[in-house]
Amino acid sequence: MSTAIVIFGASGDLAARKLIPALYANFRKQRLPEQTRIIGFSTSAFSDEQYRENMLRAVRTQTGDDFDEGVWAGFADMLHYRSGNLESPDDFAALAAELGTGDRAADDIVYYLAIAPHFFTAALGNLGAAGMLDQSAGTGTRRIIIEKPFGRDLASARALNAALLGVASEDQIYRIDHYLGKETVQNILMLRFGNAIFEPLWNRNYIDHVQITVAETVGVEHRARYYDSAGALRDMFQNHLVQLLTLVAMEAPSKVEATALRNEKAKVLEAVQMTAPEHASLNTVRGQYRGYRAEPGVAPDSSTETYAALRLFVDNWRWQGVPFFLRSGKMLPDKTSEIIIQFRRPPTQIFDTQAGVTELFTNRLRITIQPDEGLHLRFITKVPDRGMTTQPVDMDFRYRDTFGGKAIPEAYERLLLDALRGDASLFARSDEIELAWRVIDDIRAGWEGEHAPPLEEYEPGSWGPAGAERLLGRSGRWWLHESADPAPAPPQ
Amino acid sequence: MSTAIVIFGASGDLAARKLIPALYANFRKQRLPEQTRIIGFSTSAFSDEQYRENMLRAVRTQTGDDFDEGVWAGFADMLHYRSGNLESPDDFAALAAELGTGDRAADDIVYYLAIAPHFFTAALGNLGAAGMLDQSAGTGTRRIIIEKPFGRDLASARALNAALLGVASEDQIYRIDHYLGKETVQNILMLRFGNAIFEPLWNRNYIDHVQITVAETVGVEHRARYYDSAGALRDMFQNHLVQLLTLVAMEAPSKVEATALRNEKAKVLEAVQMTAPEHASLNTVRGQYRGYRAEPGVAPDSSTETYAALRLFVDNWRWQGVPFFLRSGKMLPDKTSEIIIQFRRPPTQIFDTQAGVTELFTNRLRITIQPDEGLHLRFITKVPDRGMTTQPVDMDFRYRDTFGGKAIPEAYERLLLDALRGDASLFARSDEIELAWRVIDDIRAGWEGEHAPPLEEYEPGSWGPAGAERLLGRSGRWWLHESADPAPAPPQ
Repeated sequence: MSTAIVIFGASGDLAARKLIPALYANFRKQRLPEQTRIIGFSTSAFSDEQYRENMLRAVRTQTGDDFDEGVWAGFADMLHYRSGNLESPDDFAALAAELGTGDRAADDIVYYLAIAPHFFTAALGNLGAAGMLDQSAGTGTRRIIIEKPFGRDLASARALNAALLGVASEDQIYRIDHYLGKETVQNILMLRFGNAIFEPLWNRNYIDHVQITVAETVGVEHRARYYDSAGALRDMFQNHLVQLLTLVAMEAPSKVEATALRNEKAKVLEAVQMTAPEHASLNTVRGQYRGYRAEPGVAPDSSTETYAALRLFVDNWRWQGVPFFLRSGKMLPDKTSEIIIQFRRPPTQIFDTQAGVTELFTNRLRITIQPDEGLHLRFITKVPDRGMTTQPVDMDFRYRDTFGGKAIPEAYERLLLDALRGDASLFARSDEIELAWRVIDDIRAGWEGEHAPPLEEYEPGSWGPAGAERLLGRSGRWWLHESADPAPAPPQ
Repeated sequence: MSTAIVIFGASGDLAARKLIPALYANFRKQRLPEQTRIIGFSTSAFSDEQYRENMLRAVRTQTGDDFDEGVWAGFADMLHYRSGNLESPDDFAALAAELGTGDRAADDIVYYLAIAPHFFTAALGNLGAAGMLDQSAGTGTRRIIIEKPFGRDLASARALNAALLGVASEDQIYRIDHYLGKETVQNILMLRFGNAIFEPLWNRNYIDHVQITVAETVGVEHRARYYDSAGALRDMFQNHLVQLLTLVAMEAPSKVEATALRNEKAKVLEAVQMTAPEHASLNTVRGQYRGYRAEPGVAPDSSTETYAALRLFVDNWRWQGVPFFLRSGKMLPDKTSEIIIQFRRPPTQIFDTQAGVTELFTNRLRITIQPDEGLHLRFITKVPDRGMTTQPVDMDFRYRDTFGGKAIPEAYERLLLDALRGDASLFARSDEIELAWRVIDDIRAGWEGEHAPPLEEYEPGSWGPAGAERLLGRSGRWWLHESADPAPAPPQ
């Protein structure tokens, strides 16, 4: 059996920073199939040797001290490059011929579309026309991995799904969201369904609300042109935040397998309450950091949001009435991704609380995705030597303490391997994507109506616009970021 | 207002090791009432100065580097000594006169009975006869703190309660179990009823069983004469282990106050299922460490148990069918006191488990009382970079990390202060004591019947006799001591 991995967009940023380093790491761990060829495809005119040199630099940068010359030598042998145009049927035919002929014929082929979205349709058309996705001979598999953004609204996502399903079947398609490849994200499933102690508490009876934060410290950087046409809602919410929401909110799947998992995730998205346009300003906040319009590539009158915060409800037996607060933005104080399950108060308060410690500060499970992957369970304990006075403290688990820093692989490493092995559990299905866009489109519609929330300016380095605090403050809640909620100090 | 604390048995071990150091610590923290006299009473002929010298040595030993000369000078001023005989009415009359006359007349008086049990009745009779417990003048309080052992069976405990209640009312009586003064023991209440996340899990639906261990590494030491007539059941179970059981099993009290707490604790003891004599060997284990009979002061044919393990059931809605395994013994591998709440398995297993990790090893809350007071919640997490393989890990909270070592006071410090302030929450009521003896007597009756478990010899430094493992093994469970259950190693 031989395997070929074709990377379209091989000279791009994603290939250099993520894909080739991830393949190198898998090769090093001897996880790639024995006879594997990796073929980079792009318009640039590189020889195999030149491409290898470029990728060597990239892998060295990513691995640092951990780079291994001997491993690289073996890996470089399987690395090839073919110059070509995504819109040229001839170039695809040539590639197909190379993949399918002689003693180098590949049994299984994975095509990675690490290309700009406006090339998706052309590339898919050419793949189809050249018969490169045809599995009818039954000798091997043909799979497509497709990078985000997957459309820019429900209509374009449907069109893209249609284009994909025109040349391949659903089980050949791997829509990537690298968030799902993160260890801590996958661990949400383990935590919830591998343990007996969380699930009984994981519902509207015991949970007051959920906060999901994906915060970035950077601005738009070199992505301004794309970003200004997308905004935070499309760039972060439709994929990462919505995926985190589904993992937190889903029912237990009957097994850990693509169809079962995706069915449960789709059910959550189906249950997300649509926001009536007249409630847009009650349920959503949008912000733009001061200085954004002056960034190169951004329209000087841009109304693109670089920050958004949402209040969503999931209308089912488990979650009715429990608000899910989602937020993401650029130029925030910390680069952090975390989920906070804020539990309800005890039904009665029989102990004294420390002065200044409000009651909401009691039980909360903080699932930190980055940095410092871990779990932190806040609970009330007795302050020693202070009678029956209580204080909140944390029970902590940190991935790195137990497993060591090196043990946590890059998300792409896992996802590429899953695609090679045909496990689609951590990839999004067409209906999930479309359901997520339905939510996003609904919010965007509200933002275009007469009850739209204002586009609030916020200071770079702040936690977003004032409206974000009001979004929670109206119901007596607040965002639980570390700086607003320091670990309690020991008593003097 | 002035206060007097009278310590009967002032030249004994408890006074030197615990009581005087605890009073010193309270004085240092400026928690003793302003005008306090401490009067040591014993048969030895000491002057005030001699007694202060003795106690200075004792406090120095206990406090180590933390000793403060200046504080001691102030404390020593309030320390006095009166020689006297516990069986002499005249000596009590003299003491009463001193306590009650002139400008040194005490408003509130606490009598601490740190004396051998066979003196209890005489001392109580003399206290009563001299009017030393009379509160009818209404000018101050008269309280008795009485040390364990409180009887040696139900009948003697009842007699002692009768003697106490013949000279004082229940609210004047403070039956001490220093275990209840430990921070982590009190914290069981906080944990359970100050948090919203534990109580929903704290019942037969989610808990498989409970283990309570109080292990000692020492043998009988200098207590052989007493111990050989008592045994582990009387010495440790009737008080410490049963108190821990009640705190783990009790319903939420309506408030944190003596009557409410004691009512709930008594209810647990009332619900403890009595062991039919024919099931004695099914529910109980007794052991004696090899070499015990050769200890000085121990009968050469002694059948006293130095180890016992029990399986108890609490017959109520919350706990029906959940075994509570209690064990305590001497000459065990670790000096440790801990409670383990072993939760049930998840209803279905959808993830792969690590080879060698059995399913019972999933969720467990370990409440460590000593050493290293803390909380440890074991749960399943994903092994990074190993697909969906799981591994148990611990979320940890350690008192010392948060509050520092010094902050945790000695149990007696808190208990003495509570008695001075009239808070009986952490002391046992007469009915609790008698209910606990009922359980112990029942087990002892089984041990004297024809279905008695054998007195098994065990090796010093082992975890007790083989029967202890069988006690759990019959139902597929086992004792969860650290050495049998090491923290899982990171994957290679």
